Amino acid sequence: MVTDAQQACFEAGIKFGSLYHQFAGTPVSVDSARSLETAMAEAIENQPHCEAVAVRILDDRVDAAIDHENGYTELTGSLMEVKMEIRYEGCLVRTRMEMEDGYPLMKLVGVGE
Amino acid sequence: MVTDAQQACFEAGIKFGSLYHQFAGTPVSVDSARSLETAMAEAIENQPHCEAVAVRILDDRVDAAIDHENGYTELTGSLMEVKMEIRYEGCLVRTRMEMEDGYPLMKLVGVGE
Amino acid sequence: MVTDAQQACFEAGIKFGSLYHQFAGTPVSVDSARSLETAMAEAIENQPHCEAVAVRILDDRVDAAIDHENGYTELTGSLMEVKMEIRYEGCLVRTRMEMEDGYPLMKLVGVGE
Amino acid sequence: MVTDAQQACFEAGIKFGSLYHQFAGTPVSVDSARSLETAMAEAIENQPHCEAVAVRILDDRVDAAIDHENGYTELTGSLMEVKMEIRYEGCLVRTRMEMEDGYPLMKLVGVGE
Repeated sequence: MVTDAQQACFEAGIKFGSLYHQFAGTPVSVDSARSLETAMAEAIENQPHCEAVAVRILDDRVDAAIDHENGYTELTGSLMEVKMEIRYEGCLVRTRMEMEDGYPLMKLVGVGE
Repeated sequence: MVTDAQQACFEAGIKFGSLYHQFAGTPVSVDSARSLETAMAEAIENQPHCEAVAVRILDDRVDAAIDHENGYTELTGSLMEVKMEIRYEGCLVRTRMEMEDGYPLMKLVGVGE
Repeated sequence: MVTDAQQACFEAGIKFGSLYHQFAGTPVSVDSARSLETAMAEAIENQPHCEAVAVRILDDRVDAAIDHENGYTELTGSLMEVKMEIRYEGCLVRTRMEMEDGYPLMKLVGVGE
Repeated sequence: MVTDAQQACFEAGIKFGSLYHQFAGTPVSVDSARSLETAMAEAIENQPHCEAVAVRILDDRVDAAIDHENGYTELTGSLMEVKMEIRYEGCLVRTRMEMEDGYPLMKLVGVGE
């Protein structure tokens, strides 16, 4: 037996893994960060049970990561913050990805109604 | 409050989304399917809480999907079956991806101890 | 010895392989196609020697590819047309990806000044 | 007019962009590096005009990049060396990716017969 809350958490994890591994490695600069944020959010919102996705690429970290001769870097977890809301039946799951101890951590913020 | 079972389900979802979106699109033929299966499983087993991953690329479906002039196709969910076991603290989650109604479905098979 | 024209063609190929394998598999619907087109073009334009990228996702093909119960599909070469201009020193290379005999073909359209 | 040598260089670039953006971001450890090397080479060898691909993931750099609490890192250009041979009609192109000035550079090594 799987509960709705467990299923909602599973679905939330799928969205995080998808977002991360689909877009990690994308060439990014401060100038192209806004279009990438929007595309990432709208792409993942297509997936089932996904109510809202917000992606924020951190310009100061992109800028710091850039090898200035080339003018861009590759997207990694350390350059962005992500929030998502996933609903499965009656259960709403809130999740977040942010840096913790120098490592981009995906976490369950809340599981409820 | 998030339970160990909910956290385990979230972790299981992350692994599925990662595996799928990291490797979908990889050029594959019957000859290269074995090395890809092994690499996919060993790559995802690196992730935290991941106890076991088994990937089976279905030769007959690869063969049917190939445009024979080119001799290969691109990996999609319809060409493979995946099983994973994820453990978070005391909770073991078993998951599977397989075709259902013509669509590759990722599902929770069991959540327990 | 490598000529500027050969180097320009090599650079053009890199951009095509990058664009295709970075974004293939992205969940896409008619509603999210515009933001994905923009993000793909701006991401690849970051790469060295890349003067212009135009990506057009074909709504009618996206619509036809959608399993309507889910409302989205995954990006593949058959759903888009791409044009790029690459300059290396004095040499300008024009390239295009479009369907030919049911297969998305990347091709050199012109190598010149 | 496009020469065979130019076409061969274009094809060589496609393979490099494909390999890089398909596999960048893959979770990798010293233990899983061998299967990933093999899968990358065999996957790209499926592509047209691709005669040989050799991928070497550098264990010492993987080890240095690992956050040892997690035991793995994500594949990037700085962790590997790649050699490829591409043939288009009579023209053989040799290419290599390796670190240069702290940046993974894809380069044409030779264009000939």
